[in-house]
Amino acid sequence: MTDFAITVADIEAAATRTAGHLRRTPLLSSPFIDEIAGRRVLVKPECLQHTGSFKARGAWSAISALAPDVRAKGVIAFSSGNHAQGVAWAARSHGVPSVIIMPADAPALKIANTRAYGAEVVLYDREKEDRDQIGAEMAAARGLTLVKPFDEPMVIAGQGTTGLEIAEQAAEEGVETADVLVCCGGGGLTSGIALALSDRAPGLRVRPVEPEGFDDVARSLSAGAIQRNNRMGGSICDAIVTPQPGNLTFPILSSLCGPGLAVSDDEALSAVAEAFLRLKIVAEPGGAVALAAALTRQDQIEGDAVVVVVSGGNVDPAMFARALESRGK
Amino acid sequence: MTDFAITVADIEAAATRTAGHLRRTPLLSSPFIDEIAGRRVLVKPECLQHTGSFKARGAWSAISALAPDVRAKGVIAFSSGNHAQGVAWAARSHGVPSVIIMPADAPALKIANTRAYGAEVVLYDREKEDRDQIGAEMAAARGLTLVKPFDEPMVIAGQGTTGLEIAEQAAEEGVETADVLVCCGGGGLTSGIALALSDRAPGLRVRPVEPEGFDDVARSLSAGAIQRNNRMGGSICDAIVTPQPGNLTFPILSSLCGPGLAVSDDEALSAVAEAFLRLKIVAEPGGAVALAAALTRQDQIEGDAVVVVVSGGNVDPAMFARALESRGK
Repeated sequence: MTDFAITVADIEAAATRTAGHLRRTPLLSSPFIDEIAGRRVLVKPECLQHTGSFKARGAWSAISALAPDVRAKGVIAFSSGNHAQGVAWAARSHGVPSVIIMPADAPALKIANTRAYGAEVVLYDREKEDRDQIGAEMAAARGLTLVKPFDEPMVIAGQGTTGLEIAEQAAEEGVETADVLVCCGGGGLTSGIALALSDRAPGLRVRPVEPEGFDDVARSLSAGAIQRNNRMGGSICDAIVTPQPGNLTFPILSSLCGPGLAVSDDEALSAVAEAFLRLKIVAEPGGAVALAAALTRQDQIEGDAVVVVVSGGNVDPAMFARALESRGK
Repeated sequence: MTDFAITVADIEAAATRTAGHLRRTPLLSSPFIDEIAGRRVLVKPECLQHTGSFKARGAWSAISALAPDVRAKGVIAFSSGNHAQGVAWAARSHGVPSVIIMPADAPALKIANTRAYGAEVVLYDREKEDRDQIGAEMAAARGLTLVKPFDEPMVIAGQGTTGLEIAEQAAEEGVETADVLVCCGGGGLTSGIALALSDRAPGLRVRPVEPEGFDDVARSLSAGAIQRNNRMGGSICDAIVTPQPGNLTFPILSSLCGPGLAVSDDEALSAVAEAFLRLKIVAEPGGAVALAAALTRQDQIEGDAVVVVVSGGNVDPAMFARALESRGK
């Protein structure tokens, strides 16, 4: 087997460190969802995780893995979204400071939330300032440790704890062979789950799901080499749009995952509405693309059952209302 | 101790019968909710239960307790709401027929859902027909067993399994003394939880929460005798509006619960919005009154922590959109 950035033992160690601090999210289902999908669908709702997304897992794992004297100086992250909240929350849980570098034009609610989780938010001007330089200077001056969003071994290990839970929960449901659809940005969650399942439930095959037009991972898997997205903006699934798969995540994805899938914005919105109506959970559009694939790509999925990870639920009321209206059409 | 309709042993037996068939819902929390409430809030989201409400527990418990030859003939229930779906689902899970008597003017979606869960839905005209007579004739002709919505020992025992879980989960969170706020209609869920906690976690005190103007349970507790509501219609919290507490549930409530609380429709809608934004769960207005009380009746609640049961999430998109808009005001 190829040498990966982490091993299953790293995921197990992350599970030990995070025990009692992260939620073991349940596995949900609905006969109505099964009927649309044409097979049994088991949904892992990471929107119910602390901070409303799986990002809390990786952040807690990474911060808990730091040497105490290093950790005490604090951490820093660049993010305007779910990773920001995950890092802020995990830092506060450890009693250490966090600095989050966010664009000044980020939504006010996200800035407020990140501050409310205890972070010092530093805003920069996307047009005129270099966020990397700002971050590097602050990190050097204060001895802060950078927590990257996905291409970071202990972050991948933390996200992989989702996979350990899926392996156990799917077995409890009698599901040993299935595709496991995972909403995929840089690939931290997807690669972590794939590694965990390769060891614990080899009959469960991970498949990344992305928004159409931003399917860098699917194209990279198909080409056998890292491909970039042509653009970064314009998708309502912004939470999972990244320039390209990570240097650490791609070898894992390439070695362990099945082909990628991609869904449209409208399909993601419909999945948000079905998750509301049938599962009683709040999914953000980017967090619903895997469910959307289960509901609309029946002929591209194998097996009598499929596992779907809903990766996050940090959606504003206006977008959610739009999803509910889309179903009425 | 007074002789109640059931004992804790009945709840334990229900937990054994239902194990593997019902979901153990998690305990959720959010620092944002804690801040509004002024204390730690632990939320038990029964909206994530099968069929979208706790009613699946009582229905499964009651049907599983029937003698096999009796059960095989099928069950019957009167309901246009969550109890209908719970009974239909539990009957199908047992492979037995169910008949649900619903008013012909019930929302089309609820009728469709109940049918989709496998029930034979019999519609009656509220103005011209007597539903009890229709039900009695069908039950006699086919040998169907009536599953009452709350004043039925094995239903109360099933709802009480929620209390066994709360006792364990609160202890895991280090909470041993707290008010436990429960959305209350006829009192099946509230009395079941109260009985379970009186045995397993005596520091947790149950308090029923109702919509203002439909606070028959609070007034009954205060008066020491069963009081009726003056009217049945006009609340958006329709799921928990009943004429009066049950003959079996009231003695339990009276003996074990603290004073009742009541909240307005607007407060319930705001709680639906907070549950969306901070917990990523879908609550129906009637299922959110306990959370509303935690968020608005701080001075009527005792202790550093409070446990809140969100009892259901079967809300239509238009009402949910209204809740989201209410927060924007």
